[in-house]
Amino acid sequence: MVLPKDIPSSAENYMDSQTLTKLPISSILIIIAMQTEALPLVEKFQLSEDQKSVFPKEVPWVRYQGIYRNLQINLIWPGKDLALGVDSVGTISASLVTYASIQALHPDLIINAGTAGGFKAKGASIGDVFLVSECAFHDRRIPIPVFDLYGVGLKQAWKTPNLHKELDLKVGKLSTGDSLDMSAQDESSIVANDATVKDMEGAAVAYVADIFKVPAIFLKAVTDIVDGEKPTAEEFLQNLATVSAALDQAVTKVIDFISGKCIHEL
Amino acid sequence: MVLPKDIPSSAENYMDSQTLTKLPISSILIIIAMQTEALPLVEKFQLSEDQKSVFPKEVPWVRYQGIYRNLQINLIWPGKDLALGVDSVGTISASLVTYASIQALHPDLIINAGTAGGFKAKGASIGDVFLVSECAFHDRRIPIPVFDLYGVGLKQAWKTPNLHKELDLKVGKLSTGDSLDMSAQDESSIVANDATVKDMEGAAVAYVADIFKVPAIFLKAVTDIVDGEKPTAEEFLQNLATVSAALDQAVTKVIDFISGKCIHEL
Repeated sequence: MVLPKDIPSSAENYMDSQTLTKLPISSILIIIAMQTEALPLVEKFQLSEDQKSVFPKEVPWVRYQGIYRNLQINLIWPGKDLALGVDSVGTISASLVTYASIQALHPDLIINAGTAGGFKAKGASIGDVFLVSECAFHDRRIPIPVFDLYGVGLKQAWKTPNLHKELDLKVGKLSTGDSLDMSAQDESSIVANDATVKDMEGAAVAYVADIFKVPAIFLKAVTDIVDGEKPTAEEFLQNLATVSAALDQAVTKVIDFISGKCIHEL
Repeated sequence: MVLPKDIPSSAENYMDSQTLTKLPISSILIIIAMQTEALPLVEKFQLSEDQKSVFPKEVPWVRYQGIYRNLQINLIWPGKDLALGVDSVGTISASLVTYASIQALHPDLIINAGTAGGFKAKGASIGDVFLVSECAFHDRRIPIPVFDLYGVGLKQAWKTPNLHKELDLKVGKLSTGDSLDMSAQDESSIVANDATVKDMEGAAVAYVADIFKVPAIFLKAVTDIVDGEKPTAEEFLQNLATVSAALDQAVTKVIDFISGKCIHEL
């Protein structure tokens, strides 16, 4: 048995988080997978694109940054795939940009915002923006004891009771997987995860944020009803632009709420 | 349309790779997901565990390093999950350690070695070690034009005709997904990928290696027959130790072959 080195004890983590809560939030990392979702916020917060990237020159990741209401905002979009030119969606890009951004930017809080599929059986409608209570994966089935739990990868979002009350957002659990569609196995895992919304990045961002004990919240806007009649891809593309506007409005309200507050006041 | 910054042109990549081929290989990065697979190689190459990690203190990733036959060997194992204590298997950990290791260690060549499921219909038997010709994902279904190709994420392994001839390894295509079992949708994607072996990391390592244009090869040893009678998890656990020995023997032969050669001589 080889023990990993230098793992902070839970006592140290607790002290870190206690120190953290006394300081006002000053730096926010927003992670958004798609350009269509990101650009309205870039404009809204008057962010500017990095001319000299904090990331290695080889990666397509794009950082927009600026000051908004006394908050240092870094909005990271994983960029277009170098070979294919489409947005670098999914858990691998999301985990990589979360890792590299935490290392480079040391944010006080991560906001992962994006569109998602919603389940009408759990109360989701097109255009709803959900504040996520917890994230888990639905496409990492490892039927060996304990590995099964690792695969599900359940992580709690940072608790934000005041934000919830103030903004009157719907609250639900998020299930993440790398497919836009939903197989029968995915569905059964999503039901086991008790999820109201389904995306392709959230639990990956949560996994990396948890390693570094960076508080993370998740805002997911419903572009398509998974348990509805219409094919997901068609409905997703049809609603992407308008639902992105609703998402951006919600992110703005959340940032406005955060401004001037400590992490324990959220 | 926002263009990602500083993407090297293909001409620059070509020049880089031309320069690379003139130099003998001096630094090898071995990425292995499971401790059971890694430890025999640590012993074989007489590697020692880093006392001061090149990685952030929060991550469980473990680096073993040493000199073997004039090669700087870095063997990275993603370590045990901090919360659950099981090996950090799967594509997210694999992509993160590949990214961080390339940044910290600048390897000339990456070897991703591990156990895999094999398809007897494609000629795989328990204990076979496959040299992988190409990697793709089978659990990233995004049925939107071009996004579908991004999801499949096909990447070629570094071409090693001499290694293949010398070592008489079987050659096959690899399909990667985050589940140990195989759903009907996975199976149909694996068939579409024309894969002989199925693992949980390869295509993720290939994705990151490709971004940084680091040559990568993949050695996958068959612990279980996916299209056979026995349940995967049971057969996997039954054969893990003995097949790991076969894998380690193959990795040693590959490293012995590489020693003293340039990348274009493989």
